[in-house]
Amino acid sequence: MTLPNLAPDVELAARLFDTLRERSFDGVGITREAYGPGERMAHALVRAEAEALGLEARSDPVGNLYLTLPGTDRAAKRVVLGSHLDSVQQGGNFDGAAGVLAGLATVAGMKRAGFVPGRDVTVMAIRAEEAGAWFPTSYPGSRGALGLLKPEELQVKRMDSGRTLAEHMREEGFDPGFVEAGKRELTPDNTAAFVELHIEQGPVLEAEGLPVGIVTGIPGSRRLRAARVLGEYNHSGGTPRKYRRDAAIALAELAAKLDEYWCELDAQGRVLVCTFCTMATTAEAGFTKIAGEAEFMLDVRSVDVSNCDLMFDRLHALVAAIEARRGVRFELGAEGGSKASPMDAGVQAGLLKAAASLGISHKAMASGGGHDAAAFAQAGIPAGMVFVRNQNGSHNPREAMRIEDFAAATAVVSRFVQDISQ
Amino acid sequence: MTLPNLAPDVELAARLFDTLRERSFDGVGITREAYGPGERMAHALVRAEAEALGLEARSDPVGNLYLTLPGTDRAAKRVVLGSHLDSVQQGGNFDGAAGVLAGLATVAGMKRAGFVPGRDVTVMAIRAEEAGAWFPTSYPGSRGALGLLKPEELQVKRMDSGRTLAEHMREEGFDPGFVEAGKRELTPDNTAAFVELHIEQGPVLEAEGLPVGIVTGIPGSRRLRAARVLGEYNHSGGTPRKYRRDAAIALAELAAKLDEYWCELDAQGRVLVCTFCTMATTAEAGFTKIAGEAEFMLDVRSVDVSNCDLMFDRLHALVAAIEARRGVRFELGAEGGSKASPMDAGVQAGLLKAAASLGISHKAMASGGGHDAAAFAQAGIPAGMVFVRNQNGSHNPREAMRIEDFAAATAVVSRFVQDISQ
Repeated sequence: MTLPNLAPDVELAARLFDTLRERSFDGVGITREAYGPGERMAHALVRAEAEALGLEARSDPVGNLYLTLPGTDRAAKRVVLGSHLDSVQQGGNFDGAAGVLAGLATVAGMKRAGFVPGRDVTVMAIRAEEAGAWFPTSYPGSRGALGLLKPEELQVKRMDSGRTLAEHMREEGFDPGFVEAGKRELTPDNTAAFVELHIEQGPVLEAEGLPVGIVTGIPGSRRLRAARVLGEYNHSGGTPRKYRRDAAIALAELAAKLDEYWCELDAQGRVLVCTFCTMATTAEAGFTKIAGEAEFMLDVRSVDVSNCDLMFDRLHALVAAIEARRGVRFELGAEGGSKASPMDAGVQAGLLKAAASLGISHKAMASGGGHDAAAFAQAGIPAGMVFVRNQNGSHNPREAMRIEDFAAATAVVSRFVQDISQ
Repeated sequence: MTLPNLAPDVELAARLFDTLRERSFDGVGITREAYGPGERMAHALVRAEAEALGLEARSDPVGNLYLTLPGTDRAAKRVVLGSHLDSVQQGGNFDGAAGVLAGLATVAGMKRAGFVPGRDVTVMAIRAEEAGAWFPTSYPGSRGALGLLKPEELQVKRMDSGRTLAEHMREEGFDPGFVEAGKRELTPDNTAAFVELHIEQGPVLEAEGLPVGIVTGIPGSRRLRAARVLGEYNHSGGTPRKYRRDAAIALAELAAKLDEYWCELDAQGRVLVCTFCTMATTAEAGFTKIAGEAEFMLDVRSVDVSNCDLMFDRLHALVAAIEARRGVRFELGAEGGSKASPMDAGVQAGLLKAAASLGISHKAMASGGGHDAAAFAQAGIPAGMVFVRNQNGSHNPREAMRIEDFAAATAVVSRFVQDISQ
C-alpha cells in the first residue's frame, strides 16, 4: 500500500516557535531554565496545544511530557519523537524546541489527514538537557525516564540557584522518589524507536548547502577541564633561553603539536575534533615577566573513541617531552569524558530512505555535541537523529534556522514514522 | 704610584639596607613609591647619612640627590656612581638601592682612609626608575637630569594615584619648570663617567657561580603590549577542522613557531630574548567552545637590535601564513620599543681590569632589563654597569643578594673610581 504524503503541520510549529520566543526572550537571547519558569512555560504551552489537538497528554514523575496520538494497536511498541524544551542562558529559540515542535507538527499533520498509525506515536518534551547551563550532569530528564539516572545525581545543584535537582523536581510538582526507587518509563520493550530532530550545532550543512543531516552517532569524548602548566616567573629581559621555565610557551608548543597531529589524523580520514577551549596565562602574568603558570581546557571528541585515545596517547608523550626539555610540570587534573553512542543502523537506514524518497538533499554525518538520543541508545532503544541546517551556531542569541529547512527535516521524520507505523 | 686598596665601607651599606627594609616593608615585600613616601624616606635616610660623613649634599630641581666627595680639582669632570631608590610594589630591597649604597660605601671608604680623589666623586640617588610600576615613561629621573625628558612627559600619570609626574614633583618640593625650560644638570662636559651597580635581574651569575658581571650593554626592544587574534566562536563538538577559525590554536602556533626560530638564532650564537609575557583566550571562552578571540603581549630584546628585527620579520611572515591558513585575523596593535644602549668601551675595559686586578671572578654579559645607565649612554656620557649575583630574580619579595657578593662588586667599582680619579 502506498501511503499518502502526510504533510506535517509546519504552520502550527511556526506559530509555537513565535510564542515561545515571545515568552522566553530575556532582553538578549532566549532563556528557558531547566526545572524552572522558562521550561515550565514551554511545557504548559505545548501541552495545551496538544490537548487542543486531542492528543493524550501526561507527564512522568521526573517531569517529562508525553503527548500521544493513539495507534490502532495500543499494545504495540510506540514510536517516540522528541527533544528538550530548556535552553542555555541567553541562547537561541530552536535548540531543543525544534525537536518537540517537529514531533507535534508530525502528529498534527497525521491527525489533520485522519491518518491513524498502527502504533502509538508519542511526542516527548524532555526536561533539563542543557547540562552545561543548569545541572552539571548529563541528560537527567531522558535518563530519568529511561532508568539510567543514579539516585546520587538527584543531589547535583543547579548552578544558578544552588538547589538540588531533587528540590527543583519537587518544586515543579514532580517526584524524585521515582528515581530513588529505580523505576523507569521507557524501555526497549515498550518503545520501538526514538527520533530526535535538532538543529545542527556546527556549520557543516550551511557550508555544504544541505538542509538536512542524518546522524550516524553522537561522539564520545576525553576531556580535561582544569589542566595547567607550572613553570617559573622570571624577568623577561634578564633570563636567557637556557634558564627559562616558561609555562606559556610550553602550553603553546603542546597545543600546536597536538593540532599538527590532529591534522595528520584528519588527512588519514579519521573523524574527530580537538579543541583547546581555553588557554591562558594567569592573573600573575604581565609585561616583562616570563609566565610561571598557564591553564587550559581540552575537549577531544569522536564517534570512534579510538581516535580520542590516539590523541591522548600523543598528548601524554608530548607532555613528557616538553616537561623534560623546558623544565616545566604539567598537572592535567581529572580526566572526564563519555562513551560514544552510535545511532541505530535500522533507524539511520529508515531516515535516509525517507529523505531519498522525498527528494530532500541530505548527508550522513556525525553529531558534534551530545543529545538526549545518546541516552536512548545507551538504554538499548533504537535511536536516530535528524539535523536541520542552522546559521550562526548554537547556544547564542544569533542562532538561526529557516522554516523551510525545518519543514524538510520534519517531513523526513514524518515519512519515517509513517513507514514504521503502518 | 700604586694606590692603596681602599676598602669600601660595606658595614655602612649593610646597616642602611636594614634600615631601608624596616622602613619600606609593606607586609608582603618592599614598596618605595616613586615621587612618594617610600622614595622620600629613602632619599632622606641616604642624605642624612652622607651629611654625617661630611659629603656635600644637594638635590636637583627634578629631585635627584647628589652626595659629593670633593676632589682636589673641583673643575675636573666628576665621576658619578648611582642608581635609583624607588622600588616596584611588593618588590625587593636591593633593586636600585644597591647602586646608591655601593656609591656611598665607596666614598665612605675613601673618606675613612683619608683618600682625596683627583676629581669630585658624586653618589647619585635617582628618582623614579621603575616605569612599569609608577609612571609609564622611561627613566624620568635620570633623563630629567640629563636634559632628555620631554616637557609632555611631565603629564604622564602615576598609575596608582592618577596624578601627573609634574604634580608629584611639585608635591615633593621640586620644580618641573626645569624640564619645561630645557635645562640639564649632567652633561658630557661636566661628567667623566657614570657607573651603576645593580643586582642582576636574571639567574645567569647564580647559575654560573660568579659574584659579578660587567655589563656590555642594555638591550633595545621591539614590543607588542596589546596584540590579539580574532577568529570565530563555535561549538567545539559540532565544528569540523576545516570550518574552524580558532583564535587559541592560531596564537599557539604563532608562539611555538616564533620560539623555534629563536632557538635557531640562539644556536647561531645570536643573543636575544623573546617572551610571550601573556597569552590568553578571553572571558567569553569556555568549555565546549572554540575560542573566537585571544590576546597576547610580546617582548623581544637584544643589545643588537638587528636580532629584534629578524624576529619581527619572522613574526610578520608567520602572521600572514597563519591568517591565510586558519581564517583568523591578527591585530598586533601599536608596536613599542627602545634603542639599545651599549656601555662605553673604556668604562667596560676599566671595570674588567679592576675586577681582574682584585682577583674577583666575573663575566662580561648583556643586561636583560633597562637601567638608568641607558639614559647616560644616550646623553653621550661614558657609562658602565656592574651586576651583582642575585637569587630569586627581581621585582618580587623573594629577591635576594649576598652581602659578600655586594662587597665584591662594590670593590670593583671602588677600584675603578680610584683608577680614574688619581
